Amino acid sequence: MKTLIILGSTGSIGTNTLDIVQRFPEEFRVAGLTAGNNIDKLEEQIRIFKPRVVAVSNDAAAATLRQRCAGIPVDILSGEKGIAAVASLPEAEMVISAIVGAAGLVPTLAAIRTGKHIALANKEPMVMAGKLMQEEARKHGVTIFPVDSEHSAIFQSLVGHRLQDVRRLILTASGGALWTMTKEQLRDVTPERALQHPNWKMGAKITIDSATLMNKGLEVVEARWLFDIPESRIEVLVHRESIIHSLVEYEDRSMIAQLGLPDMRTPISYAMRYPERLPLDLPSLDLAEVGRLTFCKPDHERFPCLQLGYESLRIGGTMPAAMNAANEIAVEAFLQKGIRFLEIAEVIRQTMDAHAPKEIRSLEDALDADRWARDKAESLVHALPR
Amino acid sequence: MKTLIILGSTGSIGTNTLDIVQRFPEEFRVAGLTAGNNIDKLEEQIRIFKPRVVAVSNDAAAATLRQRCAGIPVDILSGEKGIAAVASLPEAEMVISAIVGAAGLVPTLAAIRTGKHIALANKEPMVMAGKLMQEEARKHGVTIFPVDSEHSAIFQSLVGHRLQDVRRLILTASGGALWTMTKEQLRDVTPERALQHPNWKMGAKITIDSATLMNKGLEVVEARWLFDIPESRIEVLVHRESIIHSLVEYEDRSMIAQLGLPDMRTPISYAMRYPERLPLDLPSLDLAEVGRLTFCKPDHERFPCLQLGYESLRIGGTMPAAMNAANEIAVEAFLQKGIRFLEIAEVIRQTMDAHAPKEIRSLEDALDADRWARDKAESLVHALPR
Repeated sequence: MKTLIILGSTGSIGTNTLDIVQRFPEEFRVAGLTAGNNIDKLEEQIRIFKPRVVAVSNDAAAATLRQRCAGIPVDILSGEKGIAAVASLPEAEMVISAIVGAAGLVPTLAAIRTGKHIALANKEPMVMAGKLMQEEARKHGVTIFPVDSEHSAIFQSLVGHRLQDVRRLILTASGGALWTMTKEQLRDVTPERALQHPNWKMGAKITIDSATLMNKGLEVVEARWLFDIPESRIEVLVHRESIIHSLVEYEDRSMIAQLGLPDMRTPISYAMRYPERLPLDLPSLDLAEVGRLTFCKPDHERFPCLQLGYESLRIGGTMPAAMNAANEIAVEAFLQKGIRFLEIAEVIRQTMDAHAPKEIRSLEDALDADRWARDKAESLVHALPR
Repeated sequence: MKTLIILGSTGSIGTNTLDIVQRFPEEFRVAGLTAGNNIDKLEEQIRIFKPRVVAVSNDAAAATLRQRCAGIPVDILSGEKGIAAVASLPEAEMVISAIVGAAGLVPTLAAIRTGKHIALANKEPMVMAGKLMQEEARKHGVTIFPVDSEHSAIFQSLVGHRLQDVRRLILTASGGALWTMTKEQLRDVTPERALQHPNWKMGAKITIDSATLMNKGLEVVEARWLFDIPESRIEVLVHRESIIHSLVEYEDRSMIAQLGLPDMRTPISYAMRYPERLPLDLPSLDLAEVGRLTFCKPDHERFPCLQLGYESLRIGGTMPAAMNAANEIAVEAFLQKGIRFLEIAEVIRQTMDAHAPKEIRSLEDALDADRWARDKAESLVHALPR
């Protein structure tokens, strides 16, 4: 029986994680949950999974939830401190880190510092402060298991093989919702159109990141720190069908890949139960039925965000954190129809150009860069002609 | 420094193995070589690799070779006994078993019984007496590493994962040289046409086996014993490009696959140096350049030999050995234009129908079935109208 904390329990990864907990009640117990503002769903989860403590982002939502859960033995906390407190609950062995965006960094680091293994679905902590995260993990004897389908695929393709024999990591990319559009078409894309991902049902932020290929840029940064491989050995391959989730090439030119139908429960459950695999009653991949898998190179002309990811790594220090923050602001502005699709990359690029990177020695260095870049990106968004 | 013996050193696997030895002289030393009748190539290999002992199949060839190698410090043996003696040389840690056909069984078993690890390229020993081979390997603390590209792929997709979590092994099949032909076209196929394999350059026997899909039938039997997985969990998938060499599906519906350009040096070197990988300076697989991979189900109507493989396992005992022997006779007859292409399956099927299978308790049981089936198949070949 493994005791879990789920940070971001009402999102896509959070609900998939709880689906696994429900399928395997003898394997998992839930000690804590945290959510943003979906208190309806959180209330439902409290009633089913009976966590000892939960936390929500704002105080008013916490107060409402407390009224609704009167009579249920659950502590309801709020704010950043409340979320970090849930992340640190002493009885848990593993934290599923699935908060969207930079907000995941502080509680994930709190969980590491209290010695909990991490199933990491939230890529921003690694993007913002990957080196620091790994140093802390080492210090506290913590393993960080990737949950992102691409990084889980890399992880699964590395176990049993020697890290020093790795030649390249190859992250596959679906290309997102807009892959077949011309640059002219991309200019006028609406948020509604960009949210139509071909293969994966995910939250709005990450779906837009898929459409810009920034998601893959962030994944390159994440892979660099998760697997301790320099960016020059990380490649991206467009694979529209999202069946091969990623690959590793070894020195003997052998490649190992992980494949499957797109279902996040497979990588989530692998992180939760590694090295064992749970008998998930999901449809099997039938390659004869799929018929064919296709591959091509990414197009940096139409989708410049991927290269920004590589560039942020080459510059190093706080640059990936600044890039990530600018992206969050730009994507939010696009979703609110404040900027156009192609301006997302522009806002990020100009923020990066203006950023004076420094080394990350502490959490504060990453958070400072994050705040600075948010302000900068906001002002760039507002300066753009409507 | 690993000391090797190569059984079948002048064939395709043998020469590829020696290519690796030549590329990594600090890693490997050759103690013994055996060959059939290609004494020109064997002489060349003796001069380069300086084995202490070699053996060839027939006495006259050995005598000629002794004359040619006068002055070189090498013992030249001959016949089955000579080959078994080379397979048992005390100074070697590993035997590369690459003799074509049933002739590999006796020396491979001799190598196991003298405690040498086996890199197994020759599938017939496992087909003829897989259970016995594995029992002997366990008894002598020997590991059998597969070299066949498909079985090496399965092996590479299993390391680091738990055998009890395996749901299916999926062997890929190129479909061979005649995959796109109709049954009517198959009736008149010449040996020359059947020898044109789309992806792999191999010996004549195995290339015909690819064209009939008997090769895949033999591989199903081999996989059953190599990985201790019942045939009901072994599937075959036609994949014309031979890029994905095989796959394993686990209980959580995750699949692990091994991929690469078709080059036997990758699986050979992995078996030779497991768990390390040698930095082979070979071309890398570029999936964007390949563009697409295709998959379909095997066609049992046009290519009935695959099903014979499954059937031989379901019947068990000596049936796979009988099937294999009948196939060797039938393929040889086809190559000599003694029978037609579609009659290969007929000869095997009729031999199997006539065979009274018994359990394999010793090497002799397998060899008896092999001899019986050869005689039976020969008489069937001669009874066919020319």
